[in-house]
Amino acid sequence: MVPRLSGMTRHYLDHAATTPMLASAREAYVEELARVGNPSALHTSGRLARSVVEDARERMAAALGAHPTELIWTSGGTEADNLALKGLFWARHTADARRTRVVTTAIEHHAGLDPAHWLEAEHGAQAVVLPVDAEGLVSLAALREEVAAHFDQIALISVMWANNEVGAIQPLREIVNIATEHNIPVHADAVQAVGHVPVDFRASGLATMAVSAHKFGGPVGVGALVARRDLAITPLTHGGGQERKIRSGTLNAAGFHAASVAAQEAVETLDAEAERLGALQRQLIDRIRHTIPDARLSGPEPGPARLPGNVHFIFPGCAAEAMMFVLDSHGVEASNGSACSAGVAQASHVLIAMGRSERDAASTMRFSLGHTTTQDDIDALVAVLPEAVERARRVAGTFDSQVFG
Amino acid sequence: MVPRLSGMTRHYLDHAATTPMLASAREAYVEELARVGNPSALHTSGRLARSVVEDARERMAAALGAHPTELIWTSGGTEADNLALKGLFWARHTADARRTRVVTTAIEHHAGLDPAHWLEAEHGAQAVVLPVDAEGLVSLAALREEVAAHFDQIALISVMWANNEVGAIQPLREIVNIATEHNIPVHADAVQAVGHVPVDFRASGLATMAVSAHKFGGPVGVGALVARRDLAITPLTHGGGQERKIRSGTLNAAGFHAASVAAQEAVETLDAEAERLGALQRQLIDRIRHTIPDARLSGPEPGPARLPGNVHFIFPGCAAEAMMFVLDSHGVEASNGSACSAGVAQASHVLIAMGRSERDAASTMRFSLGHTTTQDDIDALVAVLPEAVERARRVAGTFDSQVFG
Repeated sequence: MVPRLSGMTRHYLDHAATTPMLASAREAYVEELARVGNPSALHTSGRLARSVVEDARERMAAALGAHPTELIWTSGGTEADNLALKGLFWARHTADARRTRVVTTAIEHHAGLDPAHWLEAEHGAQAVVLPVDAEGLVSLAALREEVAAHFDQIALISVMWANNEVGAIQPLREIVNIATEHNIPVHADAVQAVGHVPVDFRASGLATMAVSAHKFGGPVGVGALVARRDLAITPLTHGGGQERKIRSGTLNAAGFHAASVAAQEAVETLDAEAERLGALQRQLIDRIRHTIPDARLSGPEPGPARLPGNVHFIFPGCAAEAMMFVLDSHGVEASNGSACSAGVAQASHVLIAMGRSERDAASTMRFSLGHTTTQDDIDALVAVLPEAVERARRVAGTFDSQVFG
Repeated sequence: MVPRLSGMTRHYLDHAATTPMLASAREAYVEELARVGNPSALHTSGRLARSVVEDARERMAAALGAHPTELIWTSGGTEADNLALKGLFWARHTADARRTRVVTTAIEHHAGLDPAHWLEAEHGAQAVVLPVDAEGLVSLAALREEVAAHFDQIALISVMWANNEVGAIQPLREIVNIATEHNIPVHADAVQAVGHVPVDFRASGLATMAVSAHKFGGPVGVGALVARRDLAITPLTHGGGQERKIRSGTLNAAGFHAASVAAQEAVETLDAEAERLGALQRQLIDRIRHTIPDARLSGPEPGPARLPGNVHFIFPGCAAEAMMFVLDSHGVEASNGSACSAGVAQASHVLIAMGRSERDAASTMRFSLGHTTTQDDIDALVAVLPEAVERARRVAGTFDSQVFG
């Protein structure tokens, strides 16, 4: 349940795109916004602002299983991913020119994929994109082969912790084990994982990890790269030398404070929330399968390989965008795939990588559950689903007869 | 006048480091923080968030004399400067390999200087650092000479609109005229200028311009690069493709909204504030000269070549850090130079570039006035100045006898 807009109750099922701020985090933010002080200034206001930043760093690091000195604040997950990929590539390639390979997977978020392709196009890298299976899990066999053949040419391996579209949780433990034999650093985009499944940076064996506050109830515009201290990372932004000289820019005391409060609460309530959302997830999947018998779940079955808040279906023959608008007209807000491509509708590269057809990939809906989701939201969705599917099939039929003849 | 900390009235004279949020901007921020919706999502909440972003873009662009499509939201001024320098260099150098020269000045903020040096160290650029005169104004003769000799090798020229330490407003009109003859793009770091002196992007003839919201009463963590549409800029962060594919990352609707509200108010009140602060500035300069006769103003005399809120003095024989702490102990918060070097005390490169000795550069204080500054703050500073100078001279004496013998 969410705020009413123009009188209609909205059922917000797009928490993977962004989730409402936790009340604790919003209160923390509002309180800090009233203060002044650049944390790099040495007078009292500056030192107070600095203490807010460092308290936030400790709170956030504790929530992530990291040491406070391993946390580099950024403006969000995209910046953190870019910093990891480009920063590790530049540093490792400069140290050893043979290290040209950036190994990643076909189902990364664009913030992980596009930097790899850019490094290939402009900076002498070679992007190696590992395939995934039908459920969206990266092929360990392909990774083993790549590492065996090219271990001394690999600058880094980048694999997302959990996929934003189909919720597949990647076998990071095995990936890290394969990489560690050859001292290859592994970066994980943990943007969808933090606050939703247990994330312990130290135990993970990762070299770096990207997180984004607005995915777990913190503010938009705040994220972090967690980075082991023994790794050199070339900065993306140079300037005042903040954050171990890796990320310059005035420190956002209020934002970091709010983000850390959200991280703490999200992690403290994780077990209970995962159980609550997992139950709603299973129920929703069952009811969709019952209501729309030919609908097909994308990604792993509910359980340890799937985010507890993620439900993703192919509705064969449906135009996803039409389905989204029909649902929206009934107050149910969900996503046709990923919201992160700036409103541009295109067949999801994730679904294509999982072996789906272009047409199936254009017939998907993602329902992502979060801290405000209730039984009422699930009921509302299920109630309007038949109409949405029927109308979206008519639109797709019209479209098909025009396009495919 | 500012919030009380531990019972003592604080006199905040460090507005150039960061200024308190304007009440209008804070209210706007707090209101938006309660909403949810990724502006890239297509459902109602997403479209509402998108409309907040686009309204903010129009408001901000109008305040800056730019077209809304010229505004690229960033996480702040540092990111905007880095995007301009690196993005323009990469794009222009790729288009024409002879364009290796990045022309800048000796008094830029580190966010402008350090990217130029990094491009030189790592990416085949040549950083050309123009000298300044004793008042901190860039040498037009040196620029003319550079352009005449190397116009076809210059990737870009980067000059700050107004200097953050000594308040010197650069002769941008002449700089743009010199560059435009050869179609060389000029970037300006306008972080200290916006909201304090008239800034009109269209009239300026600039190619790009960096702004930072927290310097004019908006939130920390929001800034923008204003960029002409006809220029190619290579992105620093790749991902979802937001902001004309130049700056990826979830759009910060609440932050942009607050920033635009602050920009609008700052620009609307600029004339009155500039007059009010200019009068306080002149008064403060006169009283410092009267109280500490050997104190020497850095930068231009008050007037069109100096920011109205900037007062910067060399107090010969004083250890600036000691002076700062004595003032602070009396509730007067000011900066010994720039706050942007992450708390690291070092002789200001700006003062050195202006021809001051290392010792003078270590004896400077910056008092920067802003929207909360009152007569009371000026009186409080002047009252404690003699004691601060006397004690800072004693510290410097001890230090000198230890270090210089």
